[in-house]
Amino acid sequence: MQEDSDSIRAIQWTGDSLRLLDQRDLPASVNYLELVDAVSVAAAIRDMVVRGAPAIGITAAYGVVLAARQRYAESPQGWQGLLEGDIRLLTAARPTAVNLAWALQRMQRCAAGTEGDPVPLLLEEARQIHAEDIDANRQMGAHGAALIDANSSVLTYCNTGSLATGGYGTALGVIRSAWAAGKLQQVYASETRPWLQGSRLTAWELTCDRIPVTLITDNAAGFLMQNRRVQWVITGADRVTANGDVINKIGTSSLAVMCRHYDVGFMVVAPCSTLDFSLDSGAQVNIEQRSEDEVLTLADHRIAAAGASAWNPAFDITPADLVDCLVTERGVIRAPDRAKLAVLKPD
Amino acid sequence: MQEDSDSIRAIQWTGDSLRLLDQRDLPASVNYLELVDAVSVAAAIRDMVVRGAPAIGITAAYGVVLAARQRYAESPQGWQGLLEGDIRLLTAARPTAVNLAWALQRMQRCAAGTEGDPVPLLLEEARQIHAEDIDANRQMGAHGAALIDANSSVLTYCNTGSLATGGYGTALGVIRSAWAAGKLQQVYASETRPWLQGSRLTAWELTCDRIPVTLITDNAAGFLMQNRRVQWVITGADRVTANGDVINKIGTSSLAVMCRHYDVGFMVVAPCSTLDFSLDSGAQVNIEQRSEDEVLTLADHRIAAAGASAWNPAFDITPADLVDCLVTERGVIRAPDRAKLAVLKPD
Repeated sequence: MQEDSDSIRAIQWTGDSLRLLDQRDLPASVNYLELVDAVSVAAAIRDMVVRGAPAIGITAAYGVVLAARQRYAESPQGWQGLLEGDIRLLTAARPTAVNLAWALQRMQRCAAGTEGDPVPLLLEEARQIHAEDIDANRQMGAHGAALIDANSSVLTYCNTGSLATGGYGTALGVIRSAWAAGKLQQVYASETRPWLQGSRLTAWELTCDRIPVTLITDNAAGFLMQNRRVQWVITGADRVTANGDVINKIGTSSLAVMCRHYDVGFMVVAPCSTLDFSLDSGAQVNIEQRSEDEVLTLADHRIAAAGASAWNPAFDITPADLVDCLVTERGVIRAPDRAKLAVLKPD
Repeated sequence: MQEDSDSIRAIQWTGDSLRLLDQRDLPASVNYLELVDAVSVAAAIRDMVVRGAPAIGITAAYGVVLAARQRYAESPQGWQGLLEGDIRLLTAARPTAVNLAWALQRMQRCAAGTEGDPVPLLLEEARQIHAEDIDANRQMGAHGAALIDANSSVLTYCNTGSLATGGYGTALGVIRSAWAAGKLQQVYASETRPWLQGSRLTAWELTCDRIPVTLITDNAAGFLMQNRRVQWVITGADRVTANGDVINKIGTSSLAVMCRHYDVGFMVVAPCSTLDFSLDSGAQVNIEQRSEDEVLTLADHRIAAAGASAWNPAFDITPADLVDCLVTERGVIRAPDRAKLAVLKPD
């Protein structure tokens, strides 16, 4: 590993195409895909070339730039109508994270205001979304790290780092900041079945940064807490509803239940683009069900007995009352609820 | 799969050797190892050719038969002293389950009473241990199934079936009995990382019996409960201490915590040979730490980023107060505690 986290650039605009680090191949190999239209960007999001709520929002924003270029070339007058179809396609690529819809709405508003060739303005907007996300991550890193006492150990879940965001990371950004501040004794990462984002991606990012990482199987998290080996569990979020419910990677709600039982802090780190004030509670969120094969096979190798089926929800719902701290770029909300979240509602 | 559960014979005495179904190769292939001495039996237990607390006790008992045959041939006078070394070797093969020590103590007592060739008596004792275990499983199956209401769905963990016992199973025996009684709508099995006993072994056994099985990743158990999809979680035990603490596969304690949170029943099914009255509580049990490679690799394929380490406890400790029902062959103990367990203490 020659790289460090600052050199991990999972989403790159090359000047006339979008380059994505293919996260399905990590950590075994570092491959990039070069995409030139919205159809291939939507496929890359759906097939998890890129994943992580902020990262798929940014990717989709660049996808709109590619789509607008194509549609404007096809029809300098009628491109806006055509672009709407592309935006619908991108919106549908994955249903659960709100950042995708948020970024696409922002791009659509930008497109509506353009005259002549829309590409320069849209590219500027996509770059702005990307840059704002990195900036938000740095701020969340500082806010979250301030909550952590010296000599602490933490457990993180899934991947919320440079690969899942514009750069630096949400939960992993907090861990990076806390590590840089010399506060962390040990960082545990839960492997996060079925896709193994923890062992494949988070461990890769942390070793790139020379932050020692100890993996556990997801089922060992409770015993880790029972043994008082961690003071915080720190996760990201794909969507936070108006009442503070957190939709995140399957298994997050179990960690929150165990944190409460074992009196371990449960911190959720998510930019304001993840907040969804249009939904009252987590019960209203469309939880993506993914293919059974993700559970039944691994690396194209069948692991489960023939004839078995699988239930494979990709996300779950953590009730707000199990969240100790919600960290956004605007600060820390302790014991988040509807009233406290309302302060962050856009005008 | 042509087989059914009655034809799964994971531990077989051939007449002059011990045949073990190599559980490491399931479900991809059904291979048997033929063992003729205690050293290879101890290695088979350590390397998980055979696993499951009752099954390793039975295997070790046959291992004593093989050891006694060898030692008696070497020294018809001094074989008993030599056998003690073999029994120590077998006892040390895996530290956490008590059935191993229990079966070996029983074999040692039997050996102490023999005159002349010890093999016939020891073989009879090993067969008796084996037969008693199957009988206990059938009784536990009936006791446990009686606790389950019609139209229930259940989640089971790890593998506690014919492969883990003398035959039929503990927790899986309860599920078999409840299924046979027409009480079950759906059986969920948690895949049980890192060794995947759920997807490899439990799913295999259930499909052999034509009982439909739906796998989940271990981290999905909480969301399964939140969605009210199961009424019971049913597990086995490797050791139950005098106060009712349950030592079982890593992840069991997390399930128990979540069952309490979501008001789902938590049932532990274990024969009296699993009870350890010599230990006051679970805190005194030696929790086996296994190789990091079990977490970092899968099927000889490295899944984790290079440079990552792992914490890999094979078992965890569920406090007695999280157990709703302990089912033994002698009946059901609700909300087990020291006083209720004492009734089962051998004289």
